[in-house]
Amino acid sequence: MPNAIQVLYESTTSPNSRRVRFFIAEKGIHIDRNPVDLSAKEQFSEAYTAVNPRSQVPTLALADGTVITEVLAIWRYLEEVYPSAPLLGTNSKTQALVTMWERRAELDGFAPVMEGVRNVIAGLKGRALSGPHAYEQIPELVESSRQRVANFFADFNARLATVPFVAGDEFSAADITTLVTVDFSANALKMSIPEKHSAFRQWYGRVSSRPGVGA
Amino acid sequence: MPNAIQVLYESTTSPNSRRVRFFIAEKGIHIDRNPVDLSAKEQFSEAYTAVNPRSQVPTLALADGTVITEVLAIWRYLEEVYPSAPLLGTNSKTQALVTMWERRAELDGFAPVMEGVRNVIAGLKGRALSGPHAYEQIPELVESSRQRVANFFADFNARLATVPFVAGDEFSAADITTLVTVDFSANALKMSIPEKHSAFRQWYGRVSSRPGVGA
Repeated sequence: MPNAIQVLYESTTSPNSRRVRFFIAEKGIHIDRNPVDLSAKEQFSEAYTAVNPRSQVPTLALADGTVITEVLAIWRYLEEVYPSAPLLGTNSKTQALVTMWERRAELDGFAPVMEGVRNVIAGLKGRALSGPHAYEQIPELVESSRQRVANFFADFNARLATVPFVAGDEFSAADITTLVTVDFSANALKMSIPEKHSAFRQWYGRVSSRPGVGA
Repeated sequence: MPNAIQVLYESTTSPNSRRVRFFIAEKGIHIDRNPVDLSAKEQFSEAYTAVNPRSQVPTLALADGTVITEVLAIWRYLEEVYPSAPLLGTNSKTQALVTMWERRAELDGFAPVMEGVRNVIAGLKGRALSGPHAYEQIPELVESSRQRVANFFADFNARLATVPFVAGDEFSAADITTLVTVDFSANALKMSIPEKHSAFRQWYGRVSSRPGVGA
C-alpha cells in the first residue's frame, strides 16, 4: 500500500489538530500520532519544517512521502480511505450541504476566533497569521472578531432551531468544526454561547456525548 | 429528478461567480443562469434575499428547493452529478492534494485580494465583509493584504517551478482559484505576477487557453 498513512503530526493545544482528532475518533480508527510542542516552538524546528515548511499543524504524512496539510484535505483523505462512518455527506446533496455548513462554521466562527486570538496575544507579535511569513498584529481586528463571533452565535442558533445537526439530519464534519469553535471561543476569547441562544446550547448538549469530543 | 438543478444565480463582476462559471465550462455542461446586478445592489433585493438571505453570489438553486451557497459546496455538487471531467481529484491522494492546494490559493491569494479590496473601496464602507452583517473597514488591512498577495506570488512561483499544475500533474479546481485570483488581483489591486516569477507566469500562459477562462 504505497498510500498507507504513516503518522499524524499534531498538537493537543491546536484547535485545528482537534478537528482532525475528532474526525478520526468518529471513524473509530487508529492513526499513529507525533506530537509537536507548540509552546516550545517545535513547529519551527529543523526536524518539523523538513516535514512541513509552513510550520503548521496538523500534517498527515503518508508512507510514500506525500505530505497532506490543511484540515479539509486531511479529512478528505480519511473519508475516502475510511468511508464509514461518513462525515462529509453521503450523496451529492448532503455532500454539498456539509461542505457549505462546515465552511460557514469555519469562516463565520472558527476564523474570527483565531483572528481575535492571534492579534492580541503578546507571544504572537509579528505572527498574526500562522504559516511561513511574518505579519504584524492589527489591534483593530480584536473587536471586529468579537462582533463576528457574536453574530456566529446568533446565526447558528437560528439554524439549529430548525435542524438537529448543523448540516441537517445527520451528525457531520460541520458539527465538528462548530463544536471545536465553541470550545475554542470559550477558552481563548471567554465568549460562550449566550443563554438566550437556547437552540444552539441544546445542540451543544446533544453533541457533547459524541465519541470524538474528548479526542 | 428531485435534485435537478434549477438555476445558478451569479454576477459577471463577482470573482466567486467566475470560479463557478469556470468550473461549469470545464465540465462542458450547461446550467441556466440568473444574473444578479451587484452594481444595482440587487443582492439586497427582496427577491434575491428570499433565495439567499446572506445576499451573496453565487447560489445554486435545485428544483426541490435546496439552496447551495459557497463556491466549494457548489463545486462539490457539480462534481458528484457530473463526474467528468474531474476537477476535484480522482483518488484519495489527488482529492486530498487538490483540496489542499485549492485552499492555499484561496487563503493565501484569493482571500487577501478580497480583503484588500473590501477594506479600501468607498462604496463598501460598513461592508468590509460580504454577508448579512455590517462590519467597518479597517484601513490597516490594506497594506497587510498586499504583503500577503506578494508572498502568494512568490510561494506559488516556487510551487509551479516543480509541477505543471497547482495540485500536481493534472489541471484542477486549484488552478481555477489561482487563475481567478491572479486576474482579480491585477484588476482590483493592480498587482500582477512579478516578472521575476517566471514559473508562475509560464503556468499562467499554459492555463490561459483552458475552455473555462472566458466563462
